[in-house]
Amino acid sequence: MTDSEDSGIYYDFSCGISFQSSCFNDSKIINIIESVEDNQFEFLVVPLSRDKVENDKKKNNQFRPILVDTELSSSYLKSVIVGKVSKSIAQGLDSVDVDLRKSLEKLYHQEINYTSHLSLSAVILPTPISTVGSVNYSRKVYQSLTSNNFLKLWLKFKIDSENIAEQWSLWNNFRTRVNQHQRLFPVVQLEKWTKPIAEECLLQWFGEPLKAVLLPKSIFLMNQQGFPALSKAHQKFLKQSFHYNLQYIITGCQSNNAKELKPYYDYLRFLHQNQDPITESDRFEQSYLDYLQSPLQPLQDNLQSQTYEVFELDPVKYTNYQKATYLAILDLINERRLKDSLVIMVVGAGRGPLIQCTINAINRVDSKLLEGLKVKIYGVEKNPNAIHTLMSKKETLEDWKLLDIDIVDSDMRDFNPDHTADILVSELLGSFGDNELSPECLDGAQKYLNSQHGISIPTWYTSYLSPVQSQTLYQNVSNYVESQSRLDKAYETGYVVKPHLYHVLSPSQALFTFHHPNRETPIDNSRFGTLNFPISQNSLLHGFLGYFDCCLYKDVHISTNPKNFSTGMFSWFPIFFPIKQSVQLNSNSSVTCHFWRCVSKSKVWYEWTISSPISIEIHNIQGEKSSIGLI
Amino acid sequence: MTDSEDSGIYYDFSCGISFQSSCFNDSKIINIIESVEDNQFEFLVVPLSRDKVENDKKKNNQFRPILVDTELSSSYLKSVIVGKVSKSIAQGLDSVDVDLRKSLEKLYHQEINYTSHLSLSAVILPTPISTVGSVNYSRKVYQSLTSNNFLKLWLKFKIDSENIAEQWSLWNNFRTRVNQHQRLFPVVQLEKWTKPIAEECLLQWFGEPLKAVLLPKSIFLMNQQGFPALSKAHQKFLKQSFHYNLQYIITGCQSNNAKELKPYYDYLRFLHQNQDPITESDRFEQSYLDYLQSPLQPLQDNLQSQTYEVFELDPVKYTNYQKATYLAILDLINERRLKDSLVIMVVGAGRGPLIQCTINAINRVDSKLLEGLKVKIYGVEKNPNAIHTLMSKKETLEDWKLLDIDIVDSDMRDFNPDHTADILVSELLGSFGDNELSPECLDGAQKYLNSQHGISIPTWYTSYLSPVQSQTLYQNVSNYVESQSRLDKAYETGYVVKPHLYHVLSPSQALFTFHHPNRETPIDNSRFGTLNFPISQNSLLHGFLGYFDCCLYKDVHISTNPKNFSTGMFSWFPIFFPIKQSVQLNSNSSVTCHFWRCVSKSKVWYEWTISSPISIEIHNIQGEKSSIGLI
Repeated sequence: MTDSEDSGIYYDFSCGISFQSSCFNDSKIINIIESVEDNQFEFLVVPLSRDKVENDKKKNNQFRPILVDTELSSSYLKSVIVGKVSKSIAQGLDSVDVDLRKSLEKLYHQEINYTSHLSLSAVILPTPISTVGSVNYSRKVYQSLTSNNFLKLWLKFKIDSENIAEQWSLWNNFRTRVNQHQRLFPVVQLEKWTKPIAEECLLQWFGEPLKAVLLPKSIFLMNQQGFPALSKAHQKFLKQSFHYNLQYIITGCQSNNAKELKPYYDYLRFLHQNQDPITESDRFEQSYLDYLQSPLQPLQDNLQSQTYEVFELDPVKYTNYQKATYLAILDLINERRLKDSLVIMVVGAGRGPLIQCTINAINRVDSKLLEGLKVKIYGVEKNPNAIHTLMSKKETLEDWKLLDIDIVDSDMRDFNPDHTADILVSELLGSFGDNELSPECLDGAQKYLNSQHGISIPTWYTSYLSPVQSQTLYQNVSNYVESQSRLDKAYETGYVVKPHLYHVLSPSQALFTFHHPNRETPIDNSRFGTLNFPISQNSLLHGFLGYFDCCLYKDVHISTNPKNFSTGMFSWFPIFFPIKQSVQLNSNSSVTCHFWRCVSKSKVWYEWTISSPISIEIHNIQGEKSSIGLI
Repeated sequence: MTDSEDSGIYYDFSCGISFQSSCFNDSKIINIIESVEDNQFEFLVVPLSRDKVENDKKKNNQFRPILVDTELSSSYLKSVIVGKVSKSIAQGLDSVDVDLRKSLEKLYHQEINYTSHLSLSAVILPTPISTVGSVNYSRKVYQSLTSNNFLKLWLKFKIDSENIAEQWSLWNNFRTRVNQHQRLFPVVQLEKWTKPIAEECLLQWFGEPLKAVLLPKSIFLMNQQGFPALSKAHQKFLKQSFHYNLQYIITGCQSNNAKELKPYYDYLRFLHQNQDPITESDRFEQSYLDYLQSPLQPLQDNLQSQTYEVFELDPVKYTNYQKATYLAILDLINERRLKDSLVIMVVGAGRGPLIQCTINAINRVDSKLLEGLKVKIYGVEKNPNAIHTLMSKKETLEDWKLLDIDIVDSDMRDFNPDHTADILVSELLGSFGDNELSPECLDGAQKYLNSQHGISIPTWYTSYLSPVQSQTLYQNVSNYVESQSRLDKAYETGYVVKPHLYHVLSPSQALFTFHHPNRETPIDNSRFGTLNFPISQNSLLHGFLGYFDCCLYKDVHISTNPKNFSTGMFSWFPIFFPIKQSVQLNSNSSVTCHFWRCVSKSKVWYEWTISSPISIEIHNIQGEKSSIGLI
């Protein structure tokens, strides 16, 4: 079997078989494994106990393992076997019969410790009986996870059309009791569906750290040729699931004949291969899924050459900048704003891609329209290392040499040119729009933008927020912490991330907007916003995802907001604002959140909190835990 | 070029060329790189500044880079280019001429920042002038390392026969001033050797985190066919160096013609391929080199199946146990100690390898000698998971079924058998001999060893210590800390490690000895020992390496002590006891160390310190930072 955390291979297909304990009575396990592998299955689920557990307190359940390391080497045990805990555990650990409970606690303990002893890659646990009826079960599981460092547990839930929401709530309560432990994963077993299931109920499972889908033989239909097939609804679910690198397990086998199950494998493989191929941008994003990054601080730090190089490859952003600049030039000419010159200043020129857009836009304008106009471009950049690249381009590139280009080694806020600009082109946006301090930088630069007709590209931008459920992002925040040894800061910082295992709980809403040029006096870039999000299903709030929509000029936008996302643009991932304690949400309720953008002389920061359904502490008060430097 | 930290490939060969700045005047750099690669060189060393730096304060040294990212993509820059800082920096940064110093500080700053901007994999720094004359140089280097997170600096030293000890002292002082920074590495340039060099002076360099060997064209001799070759002494040095996965660099080239240098490459490659092949145990140890592990605590924790599996593969240990057991049986028979039975108890039986040794030893004894004796084996094991394996072996293995074997699920200290044992076989040794609590366990088991003639295998064991210099192990301790978030504990703990980049400063000496059975009353397993080690060269003490020598029976030993190391045995790596602050040692001096073994009711621990050449704090007082649990 493959493990999605380790392999990094996407849209991979891995399928195993689950046999009952009686299947191991007559054959040597090594022979069964050989037949499983011969029929292309990658792993085998094996019950840990040879004996069926008797729910009778008078019987002392003796642990007799099916797996013994005299028959199988540890490399086999680690890679080909998934264990299965006795089913009676789920009920027995919460039994009111003290003797029965203690007997099964002992058996559970023996089974789990033996699993760790053999270094099995995972163990399947039976479905909890009910929320109240699994309290001691969850305690024993929590105990196992904390005392066995490498143990991975797969807790089984059923997806049937009657109880899907209840099963998710069972999971939600169970994982909350074990503090959303990183090594407890849900797996789901598909049942016969007798009525349609709401899409959002299925999507909610894909937002969880799901590891496997169990497929009982009984849910397969037989087609006219006698081959197994699944209903349309099940097919659709599986096709969605293929994006999550899960394991598939055929269950409900009475015999240990893997060959009999080969047609089921072939059918699943057929469904898998009928997927659309992975797109280029999907491939690019593979290694970034759910991976948290601290936002760049290009104002305070200097970007590296390779960082510029990656961003310059964006296929959408520069096309739109070129278009916006072209339209702005035409408007200035058509409205007869220009006398004898056209001055375009690119502020924050980096290694020059926006200068290139400007050159392309100018070259696209009918040369008759430019007659009599002295065209001049300025490239202003504060990173002295990038200046070497700009100078080299100015000296060597043909289309650059044909124009009058000035390279200026300066912070745009300190630049003091002789001319004013007719157009000021910049791209200083962060994942949350204003979080790389575009407002402050452009406010500083607009003093040399023509006060009558000067155009800023971009013209305005707005940040957006959505409440989100994602145990994975929440856990990654706590891991981020440990690796950076700053536990107290981790939950009070925004992270740039391409979310994968997440579930948006309500559509995004607009938060803060900034216009350029900004002619108000005095300028105030601090903000305070309150948003109210309707919630339609029982869920768990882990934080907020932030996006932006930016108007470059007139109807030319670049946007990461889901409503009008610029397809193919990869320069920005969303930003994730976590909350310290996840909050339980009920269906037909709402979340009210409050965000502040605060500005001092030296830094800018966000503070955030929610006031409904409960109040929680205000995060990042005074910017003490995270901020963006202005100097 | 390959990076030893990332590739993990051993005995790899990688060779580059270093060209002077004038070589880049006439040709495009991409063409030079192509010719370098066409001639099998893997990387190119390029000066960062195009202009020769003038040590004239009136000239303002302008930074004009040779490398520009318009010509080379970042993947090229990262993988094929090593930068070189201007040579005048070494002298200029400590110049008493303030203007010159400030001008060169600015240039150094620009060169290093540009290096980071381009993400070069490494930069070569010129040799420090002298210890006092490089104080500001080291400060600037320290500053660069702390403000550029991925910067790797290679500081160049010369190995000539006159000044080798002085050059090492220059390095030692420089690295001490930058707090032994993890991203500062020495590289050495071989010079013509006019007299023999003491072996220990060369070995001292291999104990450092050395990255490269520079070979000026001028040190090569020309053979009769006109091909380059090296002196015997240089050849010997290079052959030793091949074990450390270094980069080799041909320097002193006047033109940029890589083809001219191909014969030099071919010669080095020839030397490299004439090495002995890697041995099996070298290969096994590759991934463990300098990798710190917490010692196992088999008494407190249960070992995993795969841990037993690895140790059971040892080719030496079990052969010696079998031999010792055989000799002990013969002695008991020949001395007529046995009446009607032979009882051998294996305590700490694990998955059974020592039971197997016992069976083999019994089967080797002439059957006539055993006539009339009832032979009985006990296997006592406290790990309930391993009991399943022992039971399975007892039921299935032919040679086990032929003998009377009892498997006992118990801590050996609690076992209370009806018989006494004639021979008690155990292997409870840690890397430091007694550190897995063999003394305490066997003291508890000896109550059922025959008090007249009972034999313990092992009979005695002694721990050994050596003072050691190893910046790499010292740094790894501080890294170990960060990953485990227990900074205060890291230097007060012993680590199991296969040391690689280290230099033993004095031969090992015996510390603590334990005999079994131990008939003293009351038994006292606490110890206090003082050792005095003569030191022959200037060096830096980072801690102590610990070993053991164990007498199983009569002249049958297993030993990790270098003096009588059991070749091929891999079950134990040495133990490393660090000290918090490294201590400078002078030649013809000595180190006096003190070690305590302390015992309480619940735990055993070590404390250690040195009293000469200076006093340092006593480490791990009261076992507060690290200890071994008795319960």
